[in-house]
Amino acid sequence: MQLGMIGLGRMGANIVRRIVADGHTAVGYERHAPLIDELSAELDAAFSGTTDLAEFVSRLETPRVVWVMIPAGATGAVIDQVAELLEPGDIIIDGGNSRYHEDIQRAERLSPKGIHYVDIGTSGGVFGRTRGFCLMIGGEAGPVKYLDPLLRSIAPGVDAAPRTPGRTGEPSPAEQGYLHCGPAGAGHFVKMVHNGIEYGAMAAYAEGLNILHKADYGTGYDGGAHSAEETPLEHPEYYRYDIDIPEVTEVWRRGSVVASWLLDLTAAALHADPNLDSFGGRVSDSGEGRWTIDAAIDIGVPVPVLSAALFQRFSSRGEAHYADKMLSAMRKAFGGHNELPQE
Amino acid sequence: MQLGMIGLGRMGANIVRRIVADGHTAVGYERHAPLIDELSAELDAAFSGTTDLAEFVSRLETPRVVWVMIPAGATGAVIDQVAELLEPGDIIIDGGNSRYHEDIQRAERLSPKGIHYVDIGTSGGVFGRTRGFCLMIGGEAGPVKYLDPLLRSIAPGVDAAPRTPGRTGEPSPAEQGYLHCGPAGAGHFVKMVHNGIEYGAMAAYAEGLNILHKADYGTGYDGGAHSAEETPLEHPEYYRYDIDIPEVTEVWRRGSVVASWLLDLTAAALHADPNLDSFGGRVSDSGEGRWTIDAAIDIGVPVPVLSAALFQRFSSRGEAHYADKMLSAMRKAFGGHNELPQE
Amino acid sequence: MQLGMIGLGRMGANIVRRIVADGHTAVGYERHAPLIDELSAELDAAFSGTTDLAEFVSRLETPRVVWVMIPAGATGAVIDQVAELLEPGDIIIDGGNSRYHEDIQRAERLSPKGIHYVDIGTSGGVFGRTRGFCLMIGGEAGPVKYLDPLLRSIAPGVDAAPRTPGRTGEPSPAEQGYLHCGPAGAGHFVKMVHNGIEYGAMAAYAEGLNILHKADYGTGYDGGAHSAEETPLEHPEYYRYDIDIPEVTEVWRRGSVVASWLLDLTAAALHADPNLDSFGGRVSDSGEGRWTIDAAIDIGVPVPVLSAALFQRFSSRGEAHYADKMLSAMRKAFGGHNELPQE
Amino acid sequence: MQLGMIGLGRMGANIVRRIVADGHTAVGYERHAPLIDELSAELDAAFSGTTDLAEFVSRLETPRVVWVMIPAGATGAVIDQVAELLEPGDIIIDGGNSRYHEDIQRAERLSPKGIHYVDIGTSGGVFGRTRGFCLMIGGEAGPVKYLDPLLRSIAPGVDAAPRTPGRTGEPSPAEQGYLHCGPAGAGHFVKMVHNGIEYGAMAAYAEGLNILHKADYGTGYDGGAHSAEETPLEHPEYYRYDIDIPEVTEVWRRGSVVASWLLDLTAAALHADPNLDSFGGRVSDSGEGRWTIDAAIDIGVPVPVLSAALFQRFSSRGEAHYADKMLSAMRKAFGGHNELPQE
Repeated sequence: MQLGMIGLGRMGANIVRRIVADGHTAVGYERHAPLIDELSAELDAAFSGTTDLAEFVSRLETPRVVWVMIPAGATGAVIDQVAELLEPGDIIIDGGNSRYHEDIQRAERLSPKGIHYVDIGTSGGVFGRTRGFCLMIGGEAGPVKYLDPLLRSIAPGVDAAPRTPGRTGEPSPAEQGYLHCGPAGAGHFVKMVHNGIEYGAMAAYAEGLNILHKADYGTGYDGGAHSAEETPLEHPEYYRYDIDIPEVTEVWRRGSVVASWLLDLTAAALHADPNLDSFGGRVSDSGEGRWTIDAAIDIGVPVPVLSAALFQRFSSRGEAHYADKMLSAMRKAFGGHNELPQE
Repeated sequence: MQLGMIGLGRMGANIVRRIVADGHTAVGYERHAPLIDELSAELDAAFSGTTDLAEFVSRLETPRVVWVMIPAGATGAVIDQVAELLEPGDIIIDGGNSRYHEDIQRAERLSPKGIHYVDIGTSGGVFGRTRGFCLMIGGEAGPVKYLDPLLRSIAPGVDAAPRTPGRTGEPSPAEQGYLHCGPAGAGHFVKMVHNGIEYGAMAAYAEGLNILHKADYGTGYDGGAHSAEETPLEHPEYYRYDIDIPEVTEVWRRGSVVASWLLDLTAAALHADPNLDSFGGRVSDSGEGRWTIDAAIDIGVPVPVLSAALFQRFSSRGEAHYADKMLSAMRKAFGGHNELPQE
Repeated sequence: MQLGMIGLGRMGANIVRRIVADGHTAVGYERHAPLIDELSAELDAAFSGTTDLAEFVSRLETPRVVWVMIPAGATGAVIDQVAELLEPGDIIIDGGNSRYHEDIQRAERLSPKGIHYVDIGTSGGVFGRTRGFCLMIGGEAGPVKYLDPLLRSIAPGVDAAPRTPGRTGEPSPAEQGYLHCGPAGAGHFVKMVHNGIEYGAMAAYAEGLNILHKADYGTGYDGGAHSAEETPLEHPEYYRYDIDIPEVTEVWRRGSVVASWLLDLTAAALHADPNLDSFGGRVSDSGEGRWTIDAAIDIGVPVPVLSAALFQRFSSRGEAHYADKMLSAMRKAFGGHNELPQE
Repeated sequence: MQLGMIGLGRMGANIVRRIVADGHTAVGYERHAPLIDELSAELDAAFSGTTDLAEFVSRLETPRVVWVMIPAGATGAVIDQVAELLEPGDIIIDGGNSRYHEDIQRAERLSPKGIHYVDIGTSGGVFGRTRGFCLMIGGEAGPVKYLDPLLRSIAPGVDAAPRTPGRTGEPSPAEQGYLHCGPAGAGHFVKMVHNGIEYGAMAAYAEGLNILHKADYGTGYDGGAHSAEETPLEHPEYYRYDIDIPEVTEVWRRGSVVASWLLDLTAAALHADPNLDSFGGRVSDSGEGRWTIDAAIDIGVPVPVLSAALFQRFSSRGEAHYADKMLSAMRKAFGGHNELPQE
């Protein structure tokens, strides 16, 4: 089967590599020519690329399958452009990080032209090429079914994890790592929630490890009676541990309840940089985490954990600073408390 | 009636001033002689002080009333000392910020000696002298009743607020600003929860005002497409306000649902320092806020708001830094994301 | 000065009453005739009303001042209707609970017609008639200035609270209880944040009082060793208080740091219904609390307290139920734990 | 090597099974004789058991290794009992869920007798027998080293997960699933934090799946204008998905960032009971989650996510009910709002 890929950055190229490795072919469109050359050299005849969008479309067999894999900000315009060149029955896939609202609008806009729109939330990051990508798919049933051979090649496959007890027979698509979640937007919706969960789980590890990090707080503790503004530690003897955090993340990887892929990566990161010296602690957030909370609020779902994780990221970037100054101002106003200097 | 006061710092001295103004007399013990001299000069015959604890005790009429008003860390030792000099029927009051656990233990320890122990949580801060102190009291009914004339003088009195609809007749002690909350420790327990609430309410204002502070975020917004790691602002036109925050806190003081004494102080602080330039944003916490959460956890009460307020104070002092670096390490591990530089 | 009021429900009627009491006159439009009759009888010649919108407009002196005070859901349509009947220079005020986004859009829509649009966030609830309404105002400077005499009559006035230290001379509008916050939408924006803060402050009290409510948890505690699934209480002796919560809320009203109008109301509610028997615990939320979090997320402001307060309301309505069942399913899966029956 | 096991419940028996399978022998003490018989029949000569504690001790080779694996509430008394029968050089292991404070105290108490105390936090639940147990160990270096052959047999072994990139040579104990974390208490301390993280991660999944569960909220939405007390849904068209949640948890197991053992179990639970009909949603918590927050508060570490997860469990058991009623009372007081009936 043939795939047209718009955008040959890391994600786009790796998807092409996976389908070609599985016997499919690909045509690529990319404005940056060296990326085309590189992939052509690597994949030989199974792949050809062009910097010309019309040429790209012309090389595709009908019904055309056009996967757009570019930064979310640019996706809308490119979809509009390529849609002008397509014909009824063709399929456009948005595999990037669009907000699912846009999917719903785009599908409606393309529908009168007979063009099918499929949104695919893609998880897997830099490891996707070898590990496979987890694919969450939204769109009409027919086109999604048509894409099945490609999706199967991109996804990790059933062997990537032990089968769930009770599941037998031919593995379902979900067991192979791809799932048709519902109509337009459903793929990005499920991917959005996936990322919301990711934020929460990451924060759970980070907070817990921070406790281990400070478990030596009572060592050499002198009573802390520097000031009435500090709470003395009642039992310094309970906090005299010097925990080897890289080793703890390693030991949890086997047999514990918190074993996870995130923990695997955390253990690897800590093995490489045990004190995290290469990080400054300004944590970005890239949309899905925010949209998850927005959606929860719209439909009245309580998400205290997911939101706390998001807000901690904001705080890591200094965004609580004004609020903190306000608190200090209040404390001074009613109690005459001055701020303590940084230790 | 006569009051013995141990500790003539701001709080102790102001309590003495209030009872003397109401016709009572006081004897003070204080190691720092100038504080004695100052108060003596101010209060004439109604007050005498000494730097000698035995002398202090000897000047008190029986049953003696000894109010200890010194930093929490020193309170226990001083109570033990003075208890050695007292007789059955005497009353020791801890008016400081002890944890209520200690009250329960002290009351048990002093009981065999016939000494009554009363714990009084005292709220009012630097304004207490003129505004009166809100008193939350724990201990046996008899001694607390005996103290009534003094408590009434220290408390704000019923005129400090409009009477609650439906309350008629002789104002109850609670309406005058002092309340016998229960046996030993109950006073500090209720004061502890008071401070827990205080943290939550302060944070509510601070977070809300921070939103107003950043309400100009969309002004001159250029699309924010600096990086795939930043979420673009969908509607910059919604965030082009230049809100005068000191004026907003002022307007809310009259007629709004969030009018409060904390807001009065906030408006005053912002009038004096509109941009909070005199504050750095390191917010201390002084015990009660922590103990409130500890108690809630012990008895299974959900306190998501009070705890979030406490943890925000920890974060304001940089205590989330290690966790934040861990999050950045994870993001880099699975997504290849590098941290963005500080803007 | 003359005010046209659309909607003579509780809020609209009370605003009319306040301006009439201050010497202004009013014309009312209301579909429900008895409300007109009632207000006419009460206010005599200073007020006239009609169920006919054109008639209403015709009775207004130019430039017309039309205040729309109806449920948010109906506001947009009515504004469109009345705008058809107005002339350049007239002023439409939305005094309801619209989202500020709509204000921005409406102002833009009305601008080409020369009609001025002013949004006013109005706080004060059922007490506004006597206490005055706190007014947060958005719109162009000219029309807002033109409305000044009316706004001054509706607002509480400077005597509603002690003047903030340092403020002298002629009281500013903010000191009288009304504030021009910025261009279109700024009024509802500030009101929205006001309500977000309100949610947080309410939750702070509610959580703290819940701790007091359960302070008797250790009374008669039998060790709690019903099951390995329950955490035994380490120190039951710390939780044997029987706190009189209505009295605590009363005592905090005078002299304490948490004194507030909300606390006044809480004390009154608890005096009337000490065990809250008339409430079931399903807490509604009415838009502003949600929009506050949405705005904070848009501009990257951490609001852990305000969001926790909102989500607790969702939970109070059973919206965490599915998540809770999921947690139980996980616990059973890894630990073999069955749910404990309700006690 | 020989192991003495006190308590042959599920956990104790499975540990015995693992060491016997690896060539070690075991002696068991258990008050409930059938459990002994069962294990004897299964393990033949490698295991013998008794209901007599002195007999149990007499069968152990010196230095004796006594692993106590019974409910936390009973552990202290049994350790005291058995310690009376032991000799200098013997080792007592607490493999249960004790709070680490107790470990510190017990180690100090046993030290003068020359008895070594080792605390082992054990994770793995019902799957530990086949999957191996993750062991977090506290105590003196010598005794922990002495136990190495047993620990290695109980732990999962290095093959239980891919090796972390960069780790080469002989696998460290951590890589095999057991880790000496520090002196007395360190094992249970790290296990405690492990469970704190577990709560947070579980909540992250549960909240996210709850959003998916309610993603059909806009289907058939009629405007929601039942009352001014409900927020109308602005875009019902965004919430018309009917998500197959069991399939989503399955698809996330392969290739996604949130793949984890918890997710494996969740997918299995949902495959068996797709609508979670067998659960009521009352979520227990068993100590470690609470102690994690207590520790964080002691040492000033912000844990907004872990605490939110704990408090949600409290709320699931109805513990927010009083607070919720208080909120309703406040709303009625200032706004005249009545509670809406349950739908």
